[in-house]
Amino acid sequence: MRLLRVGAPGRETPALLDEDGRLRDLSGVTDDLDAAFLAADGLARLAAVPVDELPVRDATGVRVGAPLRPGKIVCIGLNYRDHAAETGAALPTEPVVFLKAPDTVVGPEDPVLIPRGSTRTDWEVELAVVIGRRARYLASTEEALACVAGYAVANDVSEREFQLERGGQWDKGKSCETFNPFGPWLVTADEVPDPQRLGLRLWVNGVLRQDGNTSDMVFPVAEIVRYVSQFMVLYPGDVINTGTPAGVALGQPDPKPYLTAGDVVELEIDGLGRQRQVVAQA
Amino acid sequence: MRLLRVGAPGRETPALLDEDGRLRDLSGVTDDLDAAFLAADGLARLAAVPVDELPVRDATGVRVGAPLRPGKIVCIGLNYRDHAAETGAALPTEPVVFLKAPDTVVGPEDPVLIPRGSTRTDWEVELAVVIGRRARYLASTEEALACVAGYAVANDVSEREFQLERGGQWDKGKSCETFNPFGPWLVTADEVPDPQRLGLRLWVNGVLRQDGNTSDMVFPVAEIVRYVSQFMVLYPGDVINTGTPAGVALGQPDPKPYLTAGDVVELEIDGLGRQRQVVAQA
Repeated sequence: MRLLRVGAPGRETPALLDEDGRLRDLSGVTDDLDAAFLAADGLARLAAVPVDELPVRDATGVRVGAPLRPGKIVCIGLNYRDHAAETGAALPTEPVVFLKAPDTVVGPEDPVLIPRGSTRTDWEVELAVVIGRRARYLASTEEALACVAGYAVANDVSEREFQLERGGQWDKGKSCETFNPFGPWLVTADEVPDPQRLGLRLWVNGVLRQDGNTSDMVFPVAEIVRYVSQFMVLYPGDVINTGTPAGVALGQPDPKPYLTAGDVVELEIDGLGRQRQVVAQA
Repeated sequence: MRLLRVGAPGRETPALLDEDGRLRDLSGVTDDLDAAFLAADGLARLAAVPVDELPVRDATGVRVGAPLRPGKIVCIGLNYRDHAAETGAALPTEPVVFLKAPDTVVGPEDPVLIPRGSTRTDWEVELAVVIGRRARYLASTEEALACVAGYAVANDVSEREFQLERGGQWDKGKSCETFNPFGPWLVTADEVPDPQRLGLRLWVNGVLRQDGNTSDMVFPVAEIVRYVSQFMVLYPGDVINTGTPAGVALGQPDPKPYLTAGDVVELEIDGLGRQRQVVAQA
């Protein structure tokens, strides 16, 4: 299933994109796509509903929001070999873990704001993993995959000076307003048979900047979920951004092409849909 | 006002502690103490209710939960001169900022769990600041203080090996299950005339380990809120843990007295109440 949330910011309603690309209203099935829905086995309930019986909704001019309101967002750093190399970092021997404020989430076509005082706002196309079952001290990667509800596209927008040169921890450059475009869809795990075989691409003003594949991850999705569950409990509705391939502005020769107002960022992952953001000044 | 939430975990109801120390039920005024309550000016509404008319509730055997379900938790590192010194770190020239998963929050007397594989679980008594109004690019410390709804006690429990020796970012040792005992009360800002003049203390098995004062903060509360608002938006219901004074296990001579199952941690801040946790193995 391809699940999404449509409508004005903060007033989104749940919907499903059917096989013909039509929008089907899910308001009669659930109030929202969120932690409570996933924790109550909402996906199984939904799978039992005949899609043909769901009301078709006119998609004309409808805003697409984030497909889920996440609980927490866990991020994995330096998880592609080519990205670690371009940033001059050693390849991690175990996953680098940090957090991103869930209130940074916006829809896949909402504007991205450059923070005041920023000169180094950067892009990062990432495979986002949505947790569907509580994950705590998982013993195996098989158990880990069973905790995954689905996948989505994320742009892990980052301010490099705030992240790397303003006193210690990356979080300072990761949680700025609008810094996590998410969606358009939550694609359920049954429709992603191999999360380690997905092409992911990002363009800025039409120029292809990132062109990677999840097969290049240092730590694959199943290992990430297993690993993170040793350090914190993952709950239904939590999201993991699994790292970005090479091609970010930070990795380019000087002068590095950091984002400025008016830039257009487009990104996509095979089977998970496409985002488009116009960059503006905060 | 001293606000709290009482009842079984996940089913807490809001209450108020009156001047005589009696528990007054707030269920008739609000469903919960949370972001929505604060955003809707709930504190002002509450202040207009005559306390005498609120039903008294028998406090016998009642569990106290966290006084609020936080949105995000922002933490300030190395914010007391003596703590920076004991950990061998340089005094920060601007606040060190990191995040802690809000699902780590437990009540002030709930058990603290030592993570599996941990040998360095540590304590940190901290003044927690609860945000009451949206804070975004604040221009002054006066504006910042106007965004503070109140204060509470927090234990920013930390696993030092996970935090410092497992690959890069502190977050890995800060978001373990039960790692943020919070409460007992949310004390509204009007009852804390000077947040920079509060003694804070922590004992382990009756031995006084931390005995500090918020006057020793490198960056005071108002500056922290102003500063953080330049990097991320703070929303009603967000919490800032403002750092810990000297006396953590990490700062002691070898063998460092890290927590083990059965230890009892007690902590308090002037006017904000007292916590007591029994440590157990996860």
